[in-house]
Amino acid sequence: MKILDIYARLKRDMNYIEKELEKSIYSDYTIMRETSAHLLKAGGKRIRPVFVLLAGQFGNYQLDQIKHVAVPMELIHMASLVHDDVIDDADTRRGQLTVKSKWDNRIAMYTGDYIFAKALGVVTQLPNPWIHQIMSKAIMEMSIGEMEQIRFFFHTGQTIRNYLLRIKRKTALLIAISCQLGAIAANAPKSVSQKLFLFGYNVGMAFQIRDDVLDLCGTEQQIGKPPGSDIKQGNITLPMLLALQEESLREPLLQEIARIQAVDGQTDVSAFIRMIRGSNGIVKAEAMAARYIEKAIVALKDLPDLQAKKDLIRIAHFVGNRSY
Amino acid sequence: MKILDIYARLKRDMNYIEKELEKSIYSDYTIMRETSAHLLKAGGKRIRPVFVLLAGQFGNYQLDQIKHVAVPMELIHMASLVHDDVIDDADTRRGQLTVKSKWDNRIAMYTGDYIFAKALGVVTQLPNPWIHQIMSKAIMEMSIGEMEQIRFFFHTGQTIRNYLLRIKRKTALLIAISCQLGAIAANAPKSVSQKLFLFGYNVGMAFQIRDDVLDLCGTEQQIGKPPGSDIKQGNITLPMLLALQEESLREPLLQEIARIQAVDGQTDVSAFIRMIRGSNGIVKAEAMAARYIEKAIVALKDLPDLQAKKDLIRIAHFVGNRSY
Repeated sequence: MKILDIYARLKRDMNYIEKELEKSIYSDYTIMRETSAHLLKAGGKRIRPVFVLLAGQFGNYQLDQIKHVAVPMELIHMASLVHDDVIDDADTRRGQLTVKSKWDNRIAMYTGDYIFAKALGVVTQLPNPWIHQIMSKAIMEMSIGEMEQIRFFFHTGQTIRNYLLRIKRKTALLIAISCQLGAIAANAPKSVSQKLFLFGYNVGMAFQIRDDVLDLCGTEQQIGKPPGSDIKQGNITLPMLLALQEESLREPLLQEIARIQAVDGQTDVSAFIRMIRGSNGIVKAEAMAARYIEKAIVALKDLPDLQAKKDLIRIAHFVGNRSY
Repeated sequence: MKILDIYARLKRDMNYIEKELEKSIYSDYTIMRETSAHLLKAGGKRIRPVFVLLAGQFGNYQLDQIKHVAVPMELIHMASLVHDDVIDDADTRRGQLTVKSKWDNRIAMYTGDYIFAKALGVVTQLPNPWIHQIMSKAIMEMSIGEMEQIRFFFHTGQTIRNYLLRIKRKTALLIAISCQLGAIAANAPKSVSQKLFLFGYNVGMAFQIRDDVLDLCGTEQQIGKPPGSDIKQGNITLPMLLALQEESLREPLLQEIARIQAVDGQTDVSAFIRMIRGSNGIVKAEAMAARYIEKAIVALKDLPDLQAKKDLIRIAHFVGNRSY
């Protein structure tokens, strides 16, 4: 798989970032050390630091500078996952026990706060206030995106625009600024960091759409949790909204959603999943994801033909076809 | 009451800070705007900004600089209150409905995250990385303090040292750095900001001890919530630890605490409160608070005799005698 080549090329630098991540959340305080180690061990693709490092190659790439963006971007992502698990009542993520289930909700909340604060501590070691402002705004938007998601739970009257704005805030912005800030931290020109932002934004949108498709079409092994967790929670995603537009399916789907809502998601949702899979919602959503990927690649058009550019394009294609 | 004189003297500047606070959490996003406005309206003493402004007078006092510390200090305090309410299951605070009870737990969590991020956005408008590091570390310590509190719920074997370290992290540090950062933001010499830190630390310790005494001795009107909420939650405070040291009281107290714990605090605790009030725990805790106040005032000894110094001393005495 080509994505592995990229990681191989970045391996030395990513190992360094991993060590810095470990150091950053090392604490003298026992519970904190345990929850943090647990989070690190649970892993993840570290896709945000990868974007930071690749984007940094369009400027003056110095790992000891760029790490001050790569590490906090992953920390912010980790903190938001910990807080989401409190909200989602999730007991596992990526097949691992969550902080919330292994310790408790309260510990998870403060672990998240601690990691957010650490992200602030790391990023402010770079003296560029523009970087701080971008990061602060992105976390604010992310929080709003999470609230939007809650507000729209089981809300079948929402528009596709509502959905797109929400995943922009919730997912795409953080990937967009990973690319943008990697470039800014490497002193790349503003025109370059803007193009990388646009690239990241579009990849992020595709990433979330694919994620939402996978929740309906993936196996438990692929997605690390049982399929259908979105609708159980009330999260109406793009394939569902597209399926709801089909006249013959609309009424039965609304009834099924009402049934699931009435029992607060505590029910078998395989009939619902079959209905969505039987609609054109999946194919249409994948087509939208593909269009975002195209736009992402177009955004890179005028950037110099570095290896990093090829790598970004490859990652974009990989995200477009993701089944992990 | 003398404390009001101080606020009167600071009134113009505090009004400005209040406006900046409002602006800082103004959001285009409806729920966010409502929760934030609710939080602002719920008020509070704004004691952290007051300390920032007074400490700033020991340097080159410029409100448009110092506001970048005064506003985030209050934001961090507000965010931590919102998160505490999620944890505490508190429906009211200062007699007002909490965000958690007025909206829900999930909204409260993300409101807190949003406000933390905004604090980062405001403080990084000052270019001094030392300020950012101090603030980041304080939030990390605060999160650990909150976890400590949870870990020690109903833990009658804890020492007074455990208690003191916990309230240092949970309360005193944030007041200490309000004083310290006010001075740093006004470019006061390091020796001055260190003394102000020490002042704030000691006032903060006294403040929390008095708070814990009030939870046992105050009326619902004074403290804005029913007395005894600490023990209902499992929070073993200084007066209780001191009472547990009295041989004749120890066994009955342990039994009563076990009874309260067994029903998860869902019980009448007036017998417990009477036992503590009948012990020497209250008087001894107040004596400890008074010693912290003395130390706070000693810390200011070598600072120039500005009006701000008199005001700080007055606030310290006020905290020592607080019944609000």
